[in-house]
Amino acid sequence: MIRVSVLYPYTEGKKFDMAYYCDKHMPMVKQKVGAACKGMTIDDGKSGAQPGSKPAYVAMAHLLFDSVDAFQSAFGPHAQVIMGDIPNYTPIQPVIQISEVKL
Amino acid sequence: MIRVSVLYPYTEGKKFDMAYYCDKHMPMVKQKVGAACKGMTIDDGKSGAQPGSKPAYVAMAHLLFDSVDAFQSAFGPHAQVIMGDIPNYTPIQPVIQISEVKL
Repeated sequence: MIRVSVLYPYTEGKKFDMAYYCDKHMPMVKQKVGAACKGMTIDDGKSGAQPGSKPAYVAMAHLLFDSVDAFQSAFGPHAQVIMGDIPNYTPIQPVIQISEVKL
Repeated sequence: MIRVSVLYPYTEGKKFDMAYYCDKHMPMVKQKVGAACKGMTIDDGKSGAQPGSKPAYVAMAHLLFDSVDAFQSAFGPHAQVIMGDIPNYTPIQPVIQISEVKL
């Protein structure tokens, strides 16, 4: 199992429309990638380790797939539409990472 | 529900002992924080969005708690022991973030 992490760095003065992200963008992603996506979480970044500090990421999404191939097959055909929707909720460019799920 | 993310930045030339992390460190954390922890995942960072690229984080852990208070009450008394174990598997200092789980 792999996890695809999409991390939006907190950036002073740059907006992130969490309502659009949760209600429009991620449901669209889920519909596009379909059953290949085995799970999806969305986090609203609140702070660092110390209360009141700024979070490293204003938002994080994690998506589970059986394999890198399964992710690429499901995501590739829709990449342009999905990435093209980002400016509708934030000017922040996400950091994307692929990990092997150990636990 | 909140998610505590512990992110170890990929750093050229710095080791991360994933076996120790999975088999010794995180089980110890789980034992210390006890039932307050509602879930725990461990990721082994493989790449960025492009195959073969370096991942932003060599390892990521995510822990679920009912609230920030529940996390602090469970983690605080053991923070020194838990943080003190880090040099046993890596010289990398983790980035820690607290997020509200939206999905």
